[in-house]
Amino acid sequence: MSSSTTSTTPVGVYDSGFGGLTVLRELRRELPQLDYVYLGDSGRAPYGGRDVDTVLDFAEQCVERLFGEGCRVVVVACHTVSCVALRHLQQRYGSAERRVLGVTIPAAEAAVAATRGHIGFIGTSRTVASHTFRTEVRKLSASVQVSEIAAPLLAPLVEEGWEETDIARLAVARYVGQFAEIDTLVLGCTHYPLLERAFREVAPAGVQVLNPAPEVAARFAAWRARYAALAPEGAGRLRVLSSGDVTRFARHGARFLGEELPPVEHVGERRGRLALCPNETEPTGQIVRE
Amino acid sequence: MSSSTTSTTPVGVYDSGFGGLTVLRELRRELPQLDYVYLGDSGRAPYGGRDVDTVLDFAEQCVERLFGEGCRVVVVACHTVSCVALRHLQQRYGSAERRVLGVTIPAAEAAVAATRGHIGFIGTSRTVASHTFRTEVRKLSASVQVSEIAAPLLAPLVEEGWEETDIARLAVARYVGQFAEIDTLVLGCTHYPLLERAFREVAPAGVQVLNPAPEVAARFAAWRARYAALAPEGAGRLRVLSSGDVTRFARHGARFLGEELPPVEHVGERRGRLALCPNETEPTGQIVRE
Repeated sequence: MSSSTTSTTPVGVYDSGFGGLTVLRELRRELPQLDYVYLGDSGRAPYGGRDVDTVLDFAEQCVERLFGEGCRVVVVACHTVSCVALRHLQQRYGSAERRVLGVTIPAAEAAVAATRGHIGFIGTSRTVASHTFRTEVRKLSASVQVSEIAAPLLAPLVEEGWEETDIARLAVARYVGQFAEIDTLVLGCTHYPLLERAFREVAPAGVQVLNPAPEVAARFAAWRARYAALAPEGAGRLRVLSSGDVTRFARHGARFLGEELPPVEHVGERRGRLALCPNETEPTGQIVRE
Repeated sequence: MSSSTTSTTPVGVYDSGFGGLTVLRELRRELPQLDYVYLGDSGRAPYGGRDVDTVLDFAEQCVERLFGEGCRVVVVACHTVSCVALRHLQQRYGSAERRVLGVTIPAAEAAVAATRGHIGFIGTSRTVASHTFRTEVRKLSASVQVSEIAAPLLAPLVEEGWEETDIARLAVARYVGQFAEIDTLVLGCTHYPLLERAFREVAPAGVQVLNPAPEVAARFAAWRARYAALAPEGAGRLRVLSSGDVTRFARHGARFLGEELPPVEHVGERRGRLALCPNETEPTGQIVRE
């Protein structure tokens, strides 16, 4: 198996957990003939409340694992990582041979194209604290106003599978109610597309709810037209790696990807690196380490 | 300041975030004359969905920081850490001069004393996956039944400050509805006492809702009567350290402690250790690291 998988050049898609599968779904819809390796760092998710040093450490480990799997381009689907660590990852790993791409600029471009003047942006605490989305919008248009709201409960709600409950609708309403007079609402976390119905229900009339994932996929396709050697045609294969419980990842992941996942391969931290750890089971009880 | 603080021998209280302040509150009620140092690892909370290696790493760093602040005993208030890492911490750091105490055994003892035969236990995913609470109950009574439910949304709900909302009541009801025929419900996470009203409202008639924190404090007082040299009388002083946003910690923490907090001191990870980092501000934008 390893010889066949390492002989391909898959596109790497990296997220803190399940959420990036909503981006992978759009990428595969746009470019189904490519091979993909998805890495969800679900054993260490959520990233949204973490300090930036930790986010950078985790992002380095995950991107290195994906390059180790033969990728020559990695799409950072996670808005938290894109907003905080993308430039670092690009400076450390980027070259003519290897690229790291993010979601913030596509999201900003889609929002500026859609807005009539006032964009609302909702994301994790860390994403919003970075103000990177607003910075990118300002580069595109000095006159567009941006309001940002942190919604730390929404990603955990979706991870729990509660996106169709009254609890989710009430939580979305509570967050959206904090915006005033926006005309476009950007879903700035890869979990939120699963709450899109709730967002559409509670958004005031005239407010457009914008999932950036299709724009991310369209931009990736345009990029790939210029750099096909870094993402060559494959056979539509998909591998999925997760640092968390692989059974749970496969079960929940199907909701995000919109189809069943292949058997999820486990990765774990070994001496500061993320390594493939097949057949590792979840420990129970007290764990004593040497 | 450092000379005056290091000349005392405070009791260390460690939690992943704010929650352990509900335990500190009971400890100070029971033993108000002691000095305390509280460390909330809120920059890296929640722990409940993390892999065990990460929990062990963080727990080591936090306990070492508290011993570094002059503590000779550390109370691990966090049920996740107590259930997964306590034995490891005791083996690594415990001696005649230094002790690490947890909350799981006091919680199990209180529950066994209260139950008529069937205990419900609600906690984080990691806490429940360990089954450590059930293991401890079995040691005390082979005939008592234990049902465990993971409630990953409740700690984030409380961290958001939404414990008095319909969202919290609906979420608590959804989790509690998963139990069948219990007579005692143990709040197995230090955040949950802030939801105690919701738990009492939704628990079926005859079900006793049990917050273990007073029992933890009573057991600590009994322990301290035997080991007073490890927790000598002080002047009722309190220091609070947090790895997260200190302003936010002070604001939210008052709800958990039931009184205003002293100025919160920031700690951050430096070369694998948790160090005091006064006046550190939250970074914004893209972070590029050498």
